[in-house]
Amino acid sequence: MKEMRQQCKLPLYLKVARQIEGQIRKGALRVGDRVPSIRGLKRQQGVSVSTVLQAYFWLENQGWIEPRPQSGFYVRVPYTHLVPEPEFQVPQGVPTEVGVGNLLNEVVNCIGDDTKVLLGAASAAPELYPNRKLNRIIHKITREDPTHSSRYDFTRGMLSLRQQIARRAIAFGCSFSPNELVVTCGGMEALNLSLRAVARPGDVIAIESPTYFAVLQIIESLGMKAIEIPTHPRQGMDLVELENAILNHHVRACISMTNGHNPLGYILNDAYKKDLVELLTKHDVPLIEDDIYGDIALNGSRPQPAKVYDTKGLVLLCSSFSKVLAPGFRIGWINAGRFQDAVTRLKFINTIASPSLPQLAIAEFIESGGYDRHLRTLRATLATNVQVYSQAVVKYFPQGTKVSRPAGGYVLWVELPESVDSLDLYRQALARGISIVPGVIFSPTGRYRNHIRISCGYPWSDSIESAFVTLGRMCH
Amino acid sequence: MKEMRQQCKLPLYLKVARQIEGQIRKGALRVGDRVPSIRGLKRQQGVSVSTVLQAYFWLENQGWIEPRPQSGFYVRVPYTHLVPEPEFQVPQGVPTEVGVGNLLNEVVNCIGDDTKVLLGAASAAPELYPNRKLNRIIHKITREDPTHSSRYDFTRGMLSLRQQIARRAIAFGCSFSPNELVVTCGGMEALNLSLRAVARPGDVIAIESPTYFAVLQIIESLGMKAIEIPTHPRQGMDLVELENAILNHHVRACISMTNGHNPLGYILNDAYKKDLVELLTKHDVPLIEDDIYGDIALNGSRPQPAKVYDTKGLVLLCSSFSKVLAPGFRIGWINAGRFQDAVTRLKFINTIASPSLPQLAIAEFIESGGYDRHLRTLRATLATNVQVYSQAVVKYFPQGTKVSRPAGGYVLWVELPESVDSLDLYRQALARGISIVPGVIFSPTGRYRNHIRISCGYPWSDSIESAFVTLGRMCH
Repeated sequence: MKEMRQQCKLPLYLKVARQIEGQIRKGALRVGDRVPSIRGLKRQQGVSVSTVLQAYFWLENQGWIEPRPQSGFYVRVPYTHLVPEPEFQVPQGVPTEVGVGNLLNEVVNCIGDDTKVLLGAASAAPELYPNRKLNRIIHKITREDPTHSSRYDFTRGMLSLRQQIARRAIAFGCSFSPNELVVTCGGMEALNLSLRAVARPGDVIAIESPTYFAVLQIIESLGMKAIEIPTHPRQGMDLVELENAILNHHVRACISMTNGHNPLGYILNDAYKKDLVELLTKHDVPLIEDDIYGDIALNGSRPQPAKVYDTKGLVLLCSSFSKVLAPGFRIGWINAGRFQDAVTRLKFINTIASPSLPQLAIAEFIESGGYDRHLRTLRATLATNVQVYSQAVVKYFPQGTKVSRPAGGYVLWVELPESVDSLDLYRQALARGISIVPGVIFSPTGRYRNHIRISCGYPWSDSIESAFVTLGRMCH
Repeated sequence: MKEMRQQCKLPLYLKVARQIEGQIRKGALRVGDRVPSIRGLKRQQGVSVSTVLQAYFWLENQGWIEPRPQSGFYVRVPYTHLVPEPEFQVPQGVPTEVGVGNLLNEVVNCIGDDTKVLLGAASAAPELYPNRKLNRIIHKITREDPTHSSRYDFTRGMLSLRQQIARRAIAFGCSFSPNELVVTCGGMEALNLSLRAVARPGDVIAIESPTYFAVLQIIESLGMKAIEIPTHPRQGMDLVELENAILNHHVRACISMTNGHNPLGYILNDAYKKDLVELLTKHDVPLIEDDIYGDIALNGSRPQPAKVYDTKGLVLLCSSFSKVLAPGFRIGWINAGRFQDAVTRLKFINTIASPSLPQLAIAEFIESGGYDRHLRTLRATLATNVQVYSQAVVKYFPQGTKVSRPAGGYVLWVELPESVDSLDLYRQALARGISIVPGVIFSPTGRYRNHIRISCGYPWSDSIESAFVTLGRMCH
């Protein structure tokens, strides 16, 4: 009776919301499912649009659903139902020679190998890329401009592509001219040239911890040293520690993934980005900002890069189309601020120019509006993947496992119980045709021995589920 | 009467040969023209095939004509009618820091600019590349394999391309497996990775003098030092001087263009190549062999690389398809011998992998036989260009000018009278829309101030002729 009265007293929107919640709890609506449209629910329940909206906002606040732009609301995993996040570890701040080379080589050699279940490389399933549309554009270019590849392109890259990149940059708060861009052979070349433009052998580079493993090997190959800055899994590098490192260890440059960190998945907030740039500017330390996941913020809105706060040309903004469009095109770019001349010169002697046909194709795809349409679909799919994969970690991995909450990109950072050696796990998994990335290669000092990175680039499937079952068993 | 008797005493083949010689002298047959076919001349003169062959061998020996494989005999410039070759200068052998950066940057920034007459960049005219055939193959690939670019390729490159490269290598005396190759983003990346794999900052690299300018800037950018080995314009580095440099200056690696040297144009003979490799092997010094012009020997037969004589895996053979097929594809390759693992690792952190679609297209073009057919035509055209351009140097440049006799590649090395500063000439020419490359950037020590490099990649035309007139006037 009391319950009923309470029920009656519930505002209408809450009644509607509770019904949806019930369906999710029962499993009638599952993670990644689209909940009924606003019009649909309005008709179905005979309520007003504003009631439906109120209901959805409540569900969103509770973490049951999430909006996706121009696509509606989708069921998500409430974070409260997941295992905890990996913990904030505070590494000692001492510059170290990097020595991950051999191990990294072993891991890298397996990328692209005919592994059955690809949870290693941070790449989406081929069918998630707009291949048909890109191929149509390629046809058009070969017809209209048959000599497309018969010249050395400008070292800085095709003007048509640089124009499109510059136009898109306005939307995320950066205004630079096409002449201030250098197109590269993927994001990796962008990082490489940036680092070589700002630092020399022996110099100390401040990095996040954990950090993208290839950054460590670039630093190693150039004879530089890395200093790991304690990095919060959601809030980025500790800026006090960063300043200490700058003051005590003559840090020559800093590398940060501000949007969709690999492997942590965070998107740093604007205030932090401003503070970071101000701190580095105060000490005249260049920031190499790796924004390769900037276009894959999982909540849909494109975050600003820290570059927005760059007043002195000290930020080298690096990005790429490899994660969102076509890894095999090998097209990335840099806005190198005051280091533009140095980067251009290095680009010439590194690869002369970037491949022509992929540049022309991307430029046309962006100009036609296809790129933005594709991004909306891709983000929604990857957001679902990340949630489903997170649930699988909870379901199949041993107690004590912790998992990240990516806001951008599509990798999970998983902390396993301390008894698990992720390098062993990696090798055993590989023998069973499953690729993952062991945590130890994300640190120059051998941290993260019980961590792994899992890529959520492939839509959930039975074979992926059984890979999780296998991985879970191996951890036990 | 006496004359008539002499005339009568001439062997038949010589009578035939003298007629052709007369036609060339009168200008009825011009440089680059095809002389009548053997059958044609047989019919025309009513003589036997062997008489025609004897006549042609005589003309060839006199330097009037030259054979081109499967294409017949062509009129050439007899070397005796050209101005002398540039002289053999003996540079002092002291390792030096390289400081060509700024100047080189200035020159490089003009490559690809909308210059009217392109005598600078070593690139052939777009219409000399097999664009139509490559586009047809690209269409086919996009139809049959629509996800061609939706994966990260293997770091080492597409297997299909590596197989074709390995197969072709057998023809020039090298037997290596596809797994011993790394595909790169053009020849420049191949050189870059090779140098980084074998040497470290501060190390001394032995180079030819003059040498391809980008090699100097790679050495500079990596903080290495260069030692110029005295280099004969036809016979390559002086091996005694090279050994002295190795003994006295701890040379860590040696870079050489054995086939179609840029800018000298020589193809070294096999005995020299063997001696070079044996000398370097004796001292355990790696040889980075830049074979980018290996497929453009102007006499038609593909020379062997020095790699053929490599018994210890010390030769890193670098090449590319940019000079012969499609500069905008950005596809080169390395066989790195014992440095393969190091090169593969560096490839990953430099650009991860090379662009997929160009690799697939080249592999198919080679497999179809199209590549070899294209090479035959291209070589013949470039051989003609080189001869016509050489004649123009003689005709329009001031007395005292000397010009190289390229056996491979398609650049001329021109030594101007000492009074001419080629850097001034370069800048003045550029202001008139003509690009050339000033000699000074081919040396780390500022040699070759009165030299220029002229690319013969474009078929002779009125605008090129008037550019030569302009250049000639500027020199006076």
